[in-house]
Order: sequence, then structure tokens, then C-alpha cells
Amino acid sequence: MEMFFDPKGIALVGATGSPIKSGYRVLKNLINGFKGGIYPVNPNYEEIEGLACYSSVLAVPDPVDLAIVLVPALRVPQVIRECAERKIPGVMIESAGFAETGEEGKALQEELRQINLETGIRLWGPNCMGLVDAVHDHVFSFVVQNIRDQGFVGGDVSLIVQSGFLSAGFLVDMMSHGTMGISKACSIGNKVDVDECDLLEYLLDDSDTAAIGLYLESIPDGRRFMDLCRSSTKPIVVLKGGKSTVGAEAAMSHTASLAGNRAVVSGALAQARVVEADDFNQMMDICRALARFPEVSEESRRRVAILTPSGGAGIVSSDFVDQVGLELADLSQTTRDTLRTVYPEWMPVSNPIDIWPAIELNGAEAYVTAFEALCADPNVDAVFLHLFAVGFVRDNISPLGDAVRSSGKPVFCWIMGMRELVNKAWKSAREQGIPAFREQYRAAECMAAVLKRKKVVELEVPEVSLQGAIALPERLGQLLGDERGTLDEHLSKQVLAAGEIPVVEEKIVSSEDEAGEVASNLGFPVVMKGLSPGKIHKTELGLVRLGIGAAEEAAEEFERLKRTMDGNGVVLVQKQIRGELELIVGLVRDPQFGPCVMFGLGGVMAEVLKDSAFAVAPLTRSDALDLINRLKAQELLDGFRGAPAVDREALSRILVRIGELGCAYPRIREIDINPLILSEGKPVAVDASVILDS
Amino acid sequence: MEMFFDPKGIALVGATGSPIKSGYRVLKNLINGFKGGIYPVNPNYEEIEGLACYSSVLAVPDPVDLAIVLVPALRVPQVIRECAERKIPGVMIESAGFAETGEEGKALQEELRQINLETGIRLWGPNCMGLVDAVHDHVFSFVVQNIRDQGFVGGDVSLIVQSGFLSAGFLVDMMSHGTMGISKACSIGNKVDVDECDLLEYLLDDSDTAAIGLYLESIPDGRRFMDLCRSSTKPIVVLKGGKSTVGAEAAMSHTASLAGNRAVVSGALAQARVVEADDFNQMMDICRALARFPEVSEESRRRVAILTPSGGAGIVSSDFVDQVGLELADLSQTTRDTLRTVYPEWMPVSNPIDIWPAIELNGAEAYVTAFEALCADPNVDAVFLHLFAVGFVRDNISPLGDAVRSSGKPVFCWIMGMRELVNKAWKSAREQGIPAFREQYRAAECMAAVLKRKKVVELEVPEVSLQGAIALPERLGQLLGDERGTLDEHLSKQVLAAGEIPVVEEKIVSSEDEAGEVASNLGFPVVMKGLSPGKIHKTELGLVRLGIGAAEEAAEEFERLKRTMDGNGVVLVQKQIRGELELIVGLVRDPQFGPCVMFGLGGVMAEVLKDSAFAVAPLTRSDALDLINRLKAQELLDGFRGAPAVDREALSRILVRIGELGCAYPRIREIDINPLILSEGKPVAVDASVILDS
Repeated sequence: MEMFFDPKGIALVGATGSPIKSGYRVLKNLINGFKGGIYPVNPNYEEIEGLACYSSVLAVPDPVDLAIVLVPALRVPQVIRECAERKIPGVMIESAGFAETGEEGKALQEELRQINLETGIRLWGPNCMGLVDAVHDHVFSFVVQNIRDQGFVGGDVSLIVQSGFLSAGFLVDMMSHGTMGISKACSIGNKVDVDECDLLEYLLDDSDTAAIGLYLESIPDGRRFMDLCRSSTKPIVVLKGGKSTVGAEAAMSHTASLAGNRAVVSGALAQARVVEADDFNQMMDICRALARFPEVSEESRRRVAILTPSGGAGIVSSDFVDQVGLELADLSQTTRDTLRTVYPEWMPVSNPIDIWPAIELNGAEAYVTAFEALCADPNVDAVFLHLFAVGFVRDNISPLGDAVRSSGKPVFCWIMGMRELVNKAWKSAREQGIPAFREQYRAAECMAAVLKRKKVVELEVPEVSLQGAIALPERLGQLLGDERGTLDEHLSKQVLAAGEIPVVEEKIVSSEDEAGEVASNLGFPVVMKGLSPGKIHKTELGLVRLGIGAAEEAAEEFERLKRTMDGNGVVLVQKQIRGELELIVGLVRDPQFGPCVMFGLGGVMAEVLKDSAFAVAPLTRSDALDLINRLKAQELLDGFRGAPAVDREALSRILVRIGELGCAYPRIREIDINPLILSEGKPVAVDASVILDS
Repeated sequence: MEMFFDPKGIALVGATGSPIKSGYRVLKNLINGFKGGIYPVNPNYEEIEGLACYSSVLAVPDPVDLAIVLVPALRVPQVIRECAERKIPGVMIESAGFAETGEEGKALQEELRQINLETGIRLWGPNCMGLVDAVHDHVFSFVVQNIRDQGFVGGDVSLIVQSGFLSAGFLVDMMSHGTMGISKACSIGNKVDVDECDLLEYLLDDSDTAAIGLYLESIPDGRRFMDLCRSSTKPIVVLKGGKSTVGAEAAMSHTASLAGNRAVVSGALAQARVVEADDFNQMMDICRALARFPEVSEESRRRVAILTPSGGAGIVSSDFVDQVGLELADLSQTTRDTLRTVYPEWMPVSNPIDIWPAIELNGAEAYVTAFEALCADPNVDAVFLHLFAVGFVRDNISPLGDAVRSSGKPVFCWIMGMRELVNKAWKSAREQGIPAFREQYRAAECMAAVLKRKKVVELEVPEVSLQGAIALPERLGQLLGDERGTLDEHLSKQVLAAGEIPVVEEKIVSSEDEAGEVASNLGFPVVMKGLSPGKIHKTELGLVRLGIGAAEEAAEEFERLKRTMDGNGVVLVQKQIRGELELIVGLVRDPQFGPCVMFGLGGVMAEVLKDSAFAVAPLTRSDALDLINRLKAQELLDGFRGAPAVDREALSRILVRIGELGCAYPRIREIDINPLILSEGKPVAVDASVILDS
């Protein structure tokens, strides 16, 4: 990938002397910043802008390891073949007119893919804006001319953006507004070869990149993407387009993208410790906050001190701190004592720290005194600083920088006030390493992203590899190899039990007497079910009978079930479990992420609360515990209405095991445990089905 | 109130020639804009800035109808007395040092209140920033000097801000960033006399005000505030500080404010058709959007067309449109035909309208063609326009203005791109009457505020006045007058039944035989309860028995209950109702809003979903229907799992009646119907308590 970012020489195929064309803009951008050889290619020119122009890439002299291609789509395949022949290892195709433009374009793109497969030449694009590297002045893109003149500054956040046009607008916006600097911005377009994973892998190793933001419409290789994210110590933020049903439909018609099951994608990102963003500027704000404060801690860090010149603004901030799941710090005695030295006598010390009366009394120094005390306070995990740049409050925050640096504490600054002073304060904040924001809520969101960021745990080795490590009894293993479609309830639970998942006590019975005997042994009440091939909706077909209280009743029921099934099928006697909570556990195969474990509320609650979450299998123990934690209705799990609390360890073992089954037996298309009943806090699978490929 | 906004002459008490002082800033501001007489008052000066200075307000010549006071707090009462003596009708007290500064200050503020009560002089403040009227250049404030030089522009949104310092920062920010204009900004401070209601009433009649935004920490006279909002045809947006528990605590310690029950306040605001905001800039953005598109419609307007040069941005917008409860418009055939004339052949027409390929083919005209078609499309309620001001997309939106004006359709514009061009586009959008936004989500929020705004229904006269109009039988009326504390279940339901609220069939029985007889008449199963004075937790005391299936059982139970109650109390036999859903209906008295009706989910659901809403009594029928609509779990009401849908009319009658009871009988402190069971869709009160003042 190195040749895309730091090439020795570049052939620009489609260079032109006509200033309104993209081929001219790219050339000018190269001339203005790129230090290596630049070789315009266009048979119609002898030279452009003082550079010798070549009739084809074949004629370009060494060294050249990157070609940027801007010729019309139909001519692109030929150019690529010539590049391959010329042994140019990388091509950035910025021309449009491929898969995004219907059948003909799709065929053209497929041709590019074939050339990539045949020759191994790496292709970036097509239908993209290429690369802008603001740190090294590498503008391999027509997106904007004279990058430095636009006031662009370098920074340490890098971007990967799927949508071509979006990346242009977005990048130009971000850089020209001077709110933050960018390191590398990569517009990846149709991803015929180089994709988000390749670029992410490169950026994870890039010393100029401290945090990475991605706008993606699809994540085709979900597993590789996850593995990269999980291995990263750099913060990663993803804005996934097409989350809602309508959004997903729009995504389908836009790029040839598969939007993916929203819940699966969100689950996978959470599992990989990726922060999910909702909007473009929000993504960038979270990126710059995380780039500034990438430290993670094993301890919970939630305690925020709010330092404000306005009680009213402090109140609103308190609401936001609460809303994003953080809390107000309980200030230490030392801090309280320090604040009392600057506060007027009548004023009680509390958090938010309303500093205006102290400023009136002691001047702007009071602000600095308070800020330093908060930075040094062990009860404070982060400081939320309000800065009113209105002329009569200190708008120069450089004295605060030392306190931030020496304490290493995350500080976030909300700035409002007179435009000129706001800009000045913003610049000063950036110099002092204090992320600044124009809206309180955004500042609170970024604070939450920084404080809640979890330490990347040493990647526990999941207990199974992806195939075959769960040893089922031979009979069941064979079944999972040969059978098709839905296994009956009893067989399904035998598979689960063999996978060490606790299932309800039950037995197939073959006579009235046996039914009575088994029922007596299980203990009343029991449930009896008729299992008949292909009859999935047992309840609707009258094949389930609850609350059987005596042996004779069980015997009668045996007879009734047999009759109902016309003699086909078998009869199951099952201990009736009365639990305190119904859950659902499942396994699905996602086209992007492969086998995924689903965990959610069951019963009536499920339909109203729609509370479920996904994680990609195999799960580590901590993945499983996190998955349980992602359920919204946590209070139901923690001993609701006097019920015993859920045994989270037992539950997590089930989640791990379900994932392992999915990984070990690729013919399992789906597993559905519904309900998994919690009885005295212990989970038991009461009904289940395992669905195999048909 | 007129003298505060358009005085004939102003006495400035505390004027000074020292440029760093507030008293000088106000004077300069008056000189720069105010056309009437300006009379500085300060015994230490003969003249300031060429104006004669007076030793006291008593010496100020006519005409003078407003005094602005900036002297230290301790001297303020004396100044006010002199103003009253001088027959100056209004005083704006900008000095601080009152209730916000502890006991001494509180006493001072109380003194001001006494003067107001004694003399009738109107007092604005203290501890406030006064008034900035950008349209008339009336800057009766020290907040900022030389308002015009800061680039401030007039506009049609007016503001009422409780927090003094906040209003300053906020106002300066808003005006200097040029994103929107302001009409009047009122900083109300400690509200010793003039409060948000007085100002709101004035602004509702003010021809320079099209929409009103309020930041409030308390709404002491909730009923007057609501009545004003309900009578308004102008959009009103409220940001209420202190919503969360922590926020409310912060509010308590800030101004001497009562933050109020968050749910009650939100309910009251929703009932009064007020839009609730979460953040400062958001409040302003919603205000300017509503000021531009104040039209309301009785029809549901939810269908949005997204016009974008970037498929990716369109996808993200689709997600937001969905998230704020709007939907993507299904374009009319005419629009589709028009779009086909500019689209490349391969491209399908869909919404979002990705216009970039059409622009590549047909130039920027394609943008205008598409926009005009969308404005004219009867299937489209609003257009969400994306504008990428990056140099190669039309950044001048003036050609779009005509379409907006002629269609009258709400249009919202998201602008990103090169800073300079963004500013140009923003200005152009403002001139064309198209609200512009820098973040997609914000644009979507504002769109939702405009499209969901409801027509103010002709205020239905509630069926009762606030007192006594519900005619209860004399016995019950007397009870509600004389009794104290909690009425027993049966009595409580008799009160409800007399108020035409359906209650479960039940009867007090006085013998074993009667118990059996009544139970048989009601039909089995029945419930039997022992009602014993002061025993509220009946279930825990073994005084409730469900599922009694025969007359003998009822007779036995009578005996058991009597025994359990030691011979005290009475026995109630009640039809056992098996319903499909449990609800809770209640009445509470809120210190700010008076009697309020609560409606929520009951049973286990209630504790998990915490789904309830409030409305201020008395309720009209449509208030009650709205209250039902505000429950989040609507699906439970609409025939969940095959159950019959809730009879919303019957339910709304109960809500109206509960409110009327609360209004008619002020000694009712609380009513609690729990559960109100829905049986075959019909609501029946099964258990209830009425709590009277003790």
C-alpha cells in the first residue's frame, strides 16, 4: 500500500492543460506538493506546465510506482493493462462511470477486477477522489486546488470515506473551516480492490495518524474489519450510512452496497470497541476528541466537573452529562477549600462550579485557580469548561494549558461569544490541546466517547477455532453434517446439551404407561408436546399441553397427542419450568459478519421493548458479558421485583457456546432458543430449534 | 409593559463616565440608538458624554417613563422608592446582589417586592441584562457595546432568557455569528415582578416578533404560562434547564428556582403546543425555522424529498428523516417524468434524489429543474436540500427562491463546503427565505418541528370550571369536604363512579350468606378484599383473595377476612376482571401547574418501560386524546397480539373526568387508579384510592 501514500514517481494518465478539467487540477496539486517525479500522460500534449508529457504509461521513465487515472471509463481497462505491463504496482482510478452507473458500468468494473486478479496490480477506486495527505502535501486528487491557500492545516485524524462526492464536500468543509486538522483523507469509491480494510490496516501503522474516522455504506469483509479494529490501540469512529430501513433502501440504490442488518453491524462495532457516530461533523468531533485523549483506563471514569461563568449554562450541561451516562463529580475537600478562597462568602461550593461571582470579586484569576484545582482533584475524571468569549471573561486560555498537560486529565471546552473572540479562543484551545465545541451537547457526547472508551483487553483466545473444535457425540455430529432444514425441538436441545448448554429435563416416551412414569419422575406439573416432522407451529396445532398434574392425565394426553398426529411423530414429556424471566438466545449468519450471536428479552416484553443485541462469534467471555450489558432493560436482569439476579456467568457461557456451535458447524444456519427461562437466576433452554442448510 | 420596550425618556441611575463600567456602556448604547430623552443620574457628575447629569431621579425632567438602575444592590430600594415618587412607571434593575447571593440579598429582593406591591411600579430584574431590541436599536443593556459594529442584524425571533450571564453570552454569540437575526432579547433575571408570562404576553402581540424562544429554569405561574402559549398563533420554543435529577439540583442551587417535575413540565408544554428544545443553538435553530414556516395544517405532513449531490449524504439524511418521525415522499409521476429528462439513462429515479450524475450530464440547471419539480409535487410536504459549496456545484441558491415562494412549501438546506462559499450560500439562503443548517441532524430536527406543528384548535371549553361543577351526590360531596387522608378502595371508587368513571362491579357484604349471594350474582370468579381503616397495603396484609370460584368459598373467605381484620373493617366482593392490559391513571397537584392528570402503563411493564405522561387539568377531549398518544408503547394500545384495540374515546373521557374531579374538589390531593384494566378494549377502574388533604 506504501506506493499509494508515498510513491517515488507518479504517472498522471489523463493530464491536461485545460484549467477547468480535473486532469489539470490533479497535475497542479501534484506540482504544488509532491516531491517525486511527475509524469503527465496524454498523447495530445508535448508538455504541460513545463513538464514533459508522455503518449502512454508505457513511455514513462523510472522511477514510477503510482498511476493516477482520469481518462473516461471505457478507456480505463486498457490503461490499467498498460500499467501492469509497465510494472507500476498501484493505480488510483478517479474516473467515474463504473458499477454506480448500471449494467454497462458494472461490466467495466468487473473487467478491472479481473485485471487485478490476473496481474496482482493494486487498484484504488474507481469513482473516487483519491487521497489528500495534508501533513505531507500529497494531494492525489482533483477535489480542491491549492490546498494550502484554503487555510488547510495538518492534523492527526485520518479519514476513510466510501462515497466519492461526499468525501470531497466533507473534506473541503472540514479543512476550510479551520476547526480541526486532517492527516490523510482517503476517498475509496467503488472499492474494486483496495477497500476500507486495506486502508485501515495501513493507517493503524501510520505514525501521522492518531485516530481514524470512517464513513461506510457497507462492510463486506466484516470479520477482517473487526479483527483490525480489535487489534487497534488507536481510536476508531464509524459513521455507517443506511441504518434505518429507509436509509438502507437508499443505500441499496446508491452504491452497489449491502447495508447489512443494522443491529448486527452496531453489535459488531460495539464488540470491536469502535465508536459509532450518527452525523458527519459529529464523527469528526469525536475523532478529534479521541485523538487528543486516547488513553484508556480499566477503572470507570464518569465523574465530570463543570466550570462555568453561567449558572444557567451549568444546569443545561448537568442535564447533558446525565443524558450521556456520566455523572457530576463530588469535589474533594482540597478543591472545596481552594474554591472558598475565591468565592464570595455567601456562595456555597457545588458542582457545576459557577465562577462568575468569584470573577467579579477576584478577577479572571479566579477562573484559573478553579481550573487548576479541578485538574488536580482525584475525584474529577474530566473537566467541562465553559468559555464565554464576550470581552469581559478571559478568552485566552493559554494559562490553562499547563494544568491540562501536567494533570493529563481530559478537558473539553464549550465556547460561545463574540465571533472574533470565539475564533481566537478556539485557536488558543487547539494550541493548548483542549478540544473546543460550539454546542454543549456535542461536547458532552465527545466527553462520553473519551471517558467510556474501554481498554483493549488482551485478545483472549476463544475456546474454539472456527471449525470443528466442539466435539459432539458422533451421532449428533453426523446429524449436523447430513440433515437438512429444521431439527425438532428434542433433537435441537440434544445438540445444545451436547454443547454444554443447560436444557430442560425431558424425555421422549413411547407408551401411555411410560408417559405417566416419566412425568412422575420429572415431578408435576409437566408439559407434553407432540413432535411431528415438519410441524413447527406446535401450539397452534394443539400439540402442546401445559400444566399436567398427575400420571393418569399424562397417560391420557399421550393418547390424545398420538391421535392428533395421526400416529406420526413422537411424544415428549418435559418438566414445566416456572421462571422469573424469559430471554431469547439465537445464532444467525450475517452476509457481512458471518455467525453472530443474538441475545434479547423474550415473552411479551420482547415485542414491546424490542430489546436485543448482537455480537460476532466466536465470543470471548468478556464479549459475552458485554453483550449481556448491552441489553437496555438491565434492571430486569438485576433482581427485578425481588427475583434473584441473573447468573451472568452462566448466561455468558451459553452465549459463548452458541457462538462456538455456529463456528464449528457451518451447516447450522440458525439457532433459536426461545424461551431461555431464568429460574432462580439460572438459565435453562426450554424450547429451541436448530435450522440446518437445506 | 410598553414603557420597557418603547419608552419616551429614560433615566439611567448609576450612569458614569468611566469607560470600563457597566453604567458607561449602557449610556453609550442608549446614545447610539435610543431616540427619546436620555437622563444620566449620578450625583458625582455634572454631565457625561455631553448629556446633563442629575443628582437623583427626582430631579429628572419629563418625559421619563423608564429608569435603568445600575447602582449597588444596597442602594437600589431607595432608588426605586424615588422612581415611584417621581411617577416613573417602569424600572429595569440590572444590578446584581439580590436573591442569588444568599440571605441578605434575599431580604433586599423582598424589599423590592414590597415596593412593587405598595406602589404598583413595575420592576424588571434585578440581576439581569435588560433588553436588546436589534430592530429598533434599543440596547437597554450593558451586555455589549456598539451593537451595529458587531455585525448584528435584526430578525424576527425574540428571546426571553432567565439566566443573566447566559443571556449575554448567548445573545452576543448568536448575533455576532450572523447565522440569524434577533428581534428582542429579554434577560429577566430574578423576576421580582416582571416575569416570563408578562414578557411572553407582550411579545405575542409584538408585530416585530414571529417566533419566541425561552430559556427558563422555573415556570412558577405554570397555568398562566400555558394559557398564553395555547392562545398563541406564533410558534414558541422552550429550553427548560434542570430536566434531569442532577440538572434540577444544579437549578436549585443556581437561581432560587423550583425546577419542577420534569415529566409534568414536558407534559404541560406539549399540551400547550410548545416545542421543547434541549440545547441553546438548537433552540435558536428551531425558532428561526418556525418563524420562517409558521403555517400549520390539520393534515399530517410528513413526506420529505431529499435533493442531494451525494448519494452518501442522502443515505444519512434518510436515516435522520426516519429518526425524527418523518418519512420519504413517494414522488409523483410528473416529478419522476421531469427527473428522467435530466437523469442519465442508466439511473433509476428514487428519493433521495441523487442529482450529481444529472449535473454532470446537464450542468447545474438540473439542480434547479429537480428542485422546482419537488416544490410543485403534491406528494412532497417538504424539501431537504443539500448544498455542497465546493466550487463545482451551484452555490448561489437565488434561482431556488422563486420556487420556494410560489409553492409556499417548507424547504430546509444543509450547507457544507468551502468556508467562503458556505458563508455566501448561507447569506443567499437567508435572502431567499430558506433556513440553512450546518448539521444534517439539526436540519431534520427543525423539519420535524415545522411539519409536526399542530393547528391550534379552537379552545374547546372544558366541561367544568375550576370549582364545584361536577355534581357528586351530597354524601360524597360532603365526604370530599370533611374527610382527611386516604379514602378506602370502595369509597374511592364510589367517588370515581359518581364522576362517571367506569369502575368494577363490587359490593360491601355483611355476612357469609350475603358474600355467597353477591358472589353468585356477580359471576365467578370473584375477588374478595378486607377494607380496614389505615390498612393500605392490602395484599401484603393478606386482605386480598383472588380467584374465588364458588359461593361456599366466598362465605368461608368472608369469615377469614373478618378474622384477619380482628372484626374491624368491611368485606368487599368484586367481580374478577381478566383484561388484556393494565394502565394507571392518576391525578397529582404540581406546585407550578396545579392539578395534573397522569396516564401510564401499569403492571410489570410500567416498571420497565417507565412510560407515562402528564397533562394539566382541566383537559379538553383533544388534550386527553393527545395525552394517550404521548405514551411511547402505542402498539400495546392498538390491539397488541390480537387483543382488541383500546377504546380511546372511553379512555379519554376517564382522563377528562379525573382532571375535572381534581379541579372541582381542591381538597383532593391525589387520585390513583391502579390498575385501570382494559377488558375487551373497555377501561374499568379495578383498584383506586382518593387521597384528601390531611
